[in-house]
Amino acid sequence: MPSETRNLAVLREKAYEAALQVPFTRLTLTDGSTIQLYDTSGPSRAVRTQWIAERRRDGQPTTQLACARAGIATPEMEFVALREGVPVELVRSEVAAGRAVIPANIHHPELEPMIIGSAFLVKVNANIGTSAVTFDLAEEVEKMRWAAKWGADTVMDLSTGPRIHETREAILRESPVPIGTVPIYQALEKVNGDPTRLSWEIFRETVIEQAEQGVDYMTVHAGVLLRHVPLAADRVTGIVSRGGSLMAAWCLAHHEENFLYTHFAELCEIFAAYDITFSLGDGLRPGSIADANDAAQLAELKTLGELAPIAWAHGVQVMIEGPGHVPMHKIKENVELQQEWCHAAPFYTLGPLTTDIAPAYDHITSAIGAAMIAMYGTAMLCYVTPKEHLGLPDRDDVKAGVIAYKIAAHAADLAKGHPGAQARDDALSKARFEFRWEDQFELSLDPDTARAYHDEELPAPAAKTAHFCSMCGPKFCSMRISADLQADLREYAQQGMQAKSAEFAASGGRVYLPVEPVVPVEPVVP
Amino acid sequence: MPSETRNLAVLREKAYEAALQVPFTRLTLTDGSTIQLYDTSGPSRAVRTQWIAERRRDGQPTTQLACARAGIATPEMEFVALREGVPVELVRSEVAAGRAVIPANIHHPELEPMIIGSAFLVKVNANIGTSAVTFDLAEEVEKMRWAAKWGADTVMDLSTGPRIHETREAILRESPVPIGTVPIYQALEKVNGDPTRLSWEIFRETVIEQAEQGVDYMTVHAGVLLRHVPLAADRVTGIVSRGGSLMAAWCLAHHEENFLYTHFAELCEIFAAYDITFSLGDGLRPGSIADANDAAQLAELKTLGELAPIAWAHGVQVMIEGPGHVPMHKIKENVELQQEWCHAAPFYTLGPLTTDIAPAYDHITSAIGAAMIAMYGTAMLCYVTPKEHLGLPDRDDVKAGVIAYKIAAHAADLAKGHPGAQARDDALSKARFEFRWEDQFELSLDPDTARAYHDEELPAPAAKTAHFCSMCGPKFCSMRISADLQADLREYAQQGMQAKSAEFAASGGRVYLPVEPVVPVEPVVP
Repeated sequence: MPSETRNLAVLREKAYEAALQVPFTRLTLTDGSTIQLYDTSGPSRAVRTQWIAERRRDGQPTTQLACARAGIATPEMEFVALREGVPVELVRSEVAAGRAVIPANIHHPELEPMIIGSAFLVKVNANIGTSAVTFDLAEEVEKMRWAAKWGADTVMDLSTGPRIHETREAILRESPVPIGTVPIYQALEKVNGDPTRLSWEIFRETVIEQAEQGVDYMTVHAGVLLRHVPLAADRVTGIVSRGGSLMAAWCLAHHEENFLYTHFAELCEIFAAYDITFSLGDGLRPGSIADANDAAQLAELKTLGELAPIAWAHGVQVMIEGPGHVPMHKIKENVELQQEWCHAAPFYTLGPLTTDIAPAYDHITSAIGAAMIAMYGTAMLCYVTPKEHLGLPDRDDVKAGVIAYKIAAHAADLAKGHPGAQARDDALSKARFEFRWEDQFELSLDPDTARAYHDEELPAPAAKTAHFCSMCGPKFCSMRISADLQADLREYAQQGMQAKSAEFAASGGRVYLPVEPVVPVEPVVP
Repeated sequence: MPSETRNLAVLREKAYEAALQVPFTRLTLTDGSTIQLYDTSGPSRAVRTQWIAERRRDGQPTTQLACARAGIATPEMEFVALREGVPVELVRSEVAAGRAVIPANIHHPELEPMIIGSAFLVKVNANIGTSAVTFDLAEEVEKMRWAAKWGADTVMDLSTGPRIHETREAILRESPVPIGTVPIYQALEKVNGDPTRLSWEIFRETVIEQAEQGVDYMTVHAGVLLRHVPLAADRVTGIVSRGGSLMAAWCLAHHEENFLYTHFAELCEIFAAYDITFSLGDGLRPGSIADANDAAQLAELKTLGELAPIAWAHGVQVMIEGPGHVPMHKIKENVELQQEWCHAAPFYTLGPLTTDIAPAYDHITSAIGAAMIAMYGTAMLCYVTPKEHLGLPDRDDVKAGVIAYKIAAHAADLAKGHPGAQARDDALSKARFEFRWEDQFELSLDPDTARAYHDEELPAPAAKTAHFCSMCGPKFCSMRISADLQADLREYAQQGMQAKSAEFAASGGRVYLPVEPVVPVEPVVP
């Protein structure tokens, strides 16, 4: 449409689809077109309260897996089908087969359901949580909201300091996304930090406490077996998983098999009662390039593959955790072995970091590995922030980590040819080519920063419709020159070169050239 | 060694190896070990003045390619062999075969030679330069120094505004790294920004002006042929290369073949006289995911493959430029076609960006693609900064771009199994596992930021030797628990489990546990 009648502002609305109240962000762009974006930001409308009550009333199974196997498409499944734009039968069948999970504790009605599986959009988890060195309950709740605002699909509360219970309660009651935990951390607090005093009884009590609160998935390091521990002895970086090192210490001190392994079936019964999803932890994941894909890591992975069917037999959903630090050429093998040994259960990896030499930039070293591992089939990516290895992430780090991982996840969705994934890229690129700056900003993962960067040099409102930016200036804008050529080119291509030649010569070869700025903008000359 | 006698500071020195004065950074770590790192930071000792004079005196060929073919190992080749830690014969033979280039204009004696080729370390280029909207000569020189400090292997001066000649002169006389340019930009300034008034004569004059100054390599868009232009007509983002759009505009306006193509042999003669390296420009590179690997891009690539042997016949070195915006699953094809069609000439790519939806984070979207394309064989990566698509990079953006690309390049070196590449990762990981914080910082790509992040929560000097950080706190530090277990584990693995069992029981299972901080550090409680 002509520029003088064009709306200059993008309309950004929260939209809810169907009776299930599936949330979306709806953008109405300045050219009049609309686009719907997946929206994790909440707040939730707590629609699950009713669904859970009805399921109980109708005598249906408690867990999504049991329902799926019984041929029941739960409201949660219908919700995620609408959210992903796929048939509900695909959701049900993938959950039934164990290839996808919907982490949704029956005590977490605030949840807006989401699905994790290689047939669906790649998901991103953000870790938050206090430590003994630094903690602030309100700040953690705010970090959860902040992570969800920027696109985190799940959040893990990894608090280890004081007030673990209250922190988690506050987070859960506000969270529209599934919350994951690592119960061994709280169990350790209960034994004053002495891992040798851990026990199945203390762990069990902790799991039930967290289950009652509504934790949707829990990391359990049940694959760190006594016989695996010596395999890590000659590593450059030993055991870098906290849970893994605790269980290794326990196993060695007692010279007994890991109680999480020996009591796994009992754990499954508890998980089934609340529909908690297992995240089978990789306690022996490599913590350096040197240790990638080694015997310790692979031995544990194989054990996790033995545990998954036991959980499934109890109607409990399972994800498998993966590394860590892995050079690019060893990434594919991780997915292939995981898929084979763990019977196609969803893979959930931390990065992986593709080099060890960039502390303070490990959101980038790991976004490279994350994008690749997701392309090969990993279902969810646990983010890494710039503070990894150096300290606890603050608000800015959480955002940096989430954005880097949304990039990795989306790059993988494109590479996998996920239906509809490219629509946002195409809309943004079209806006870019047509100099619809506000549309470009609003379609981006972080409109605030994109706009701020553009405004640094061209803050005038007129610059938002200018047919160039400060990168090249008006004379050198290739997009502008190209856009001016475009219409003619199409005609040119149709009519053939010979016929057009004379016409070009007649017009002095200057019909579309030179280009001049449409909107006067003051150049900034320092 | 015992901690009380350990040196707490890392010694960082500039070292020069052999008579050729090859620069390195030498770190002496706190455990007494040393490591040498590749060093691009300059300032140069201008050793080339003598080499160039001697070559002329001895009647040897002017160009590195001609020398290599004549079986002569130039001082430049010996320099890069020492720098890369490879035999000089590998350098000579790769240059002779056209698989590697040493961009080194005989009028740039300040240069510290470097090599670009898939058999060597992956290199990174940083773009700087003024535009009509913003310029400051001193700032551009400082950006060049800044880029080289953080590891840029070459720098392209893409200035398009006023004072192009003076800006370039100032940069060249200070630059230890090869300087590349795109001469068509200055040529356009000479015709007041009207691309239809460009001509071979004006271009030739501009190239000679820049050659005399010492420009080491030049981008020439000789592959944008008249018949290729209509292939870009239906693209989402048309022609996004500045040089490409200018040449397309010229071709269409005149209905004549690209003068860079028709005069290519003459251009080769000029390049040969100064030993300038061609960077054959990808004027039709895709500017969006939608346009990746399309007919226009590939038609141009094929033409570049026809031009490379013409340059070689003149004794002129050649690189081939590549995209751009490419989804992950289409990256490999780019390298395969380039290597086949362009006879294994070094590939030099801009990113590629693996999604379009993250303006303000395109250093990350493209670091993913850059790492992958380098793993497949790309020899040099042109960085993308966070300001890409939004404005001109400032000092912070230049650093962010260089660091992201050093990560991508190093990740690819690891994946390619480049000899020695993993030594730095291993040294850093070992330092990390042994809580040698200062060693970890100094071995990282950006010691300043790594140290600053750590200091945010644990600023006390004692924290630099503490056996934990604020991420997990003392009780939860897996590295600490694991390190404490390590020595015992090795013994344990040797002696077998049975024999150790009784011993463990006798010691109460608490020999190595619980762990307590060695150095008292005040927790920071907000």
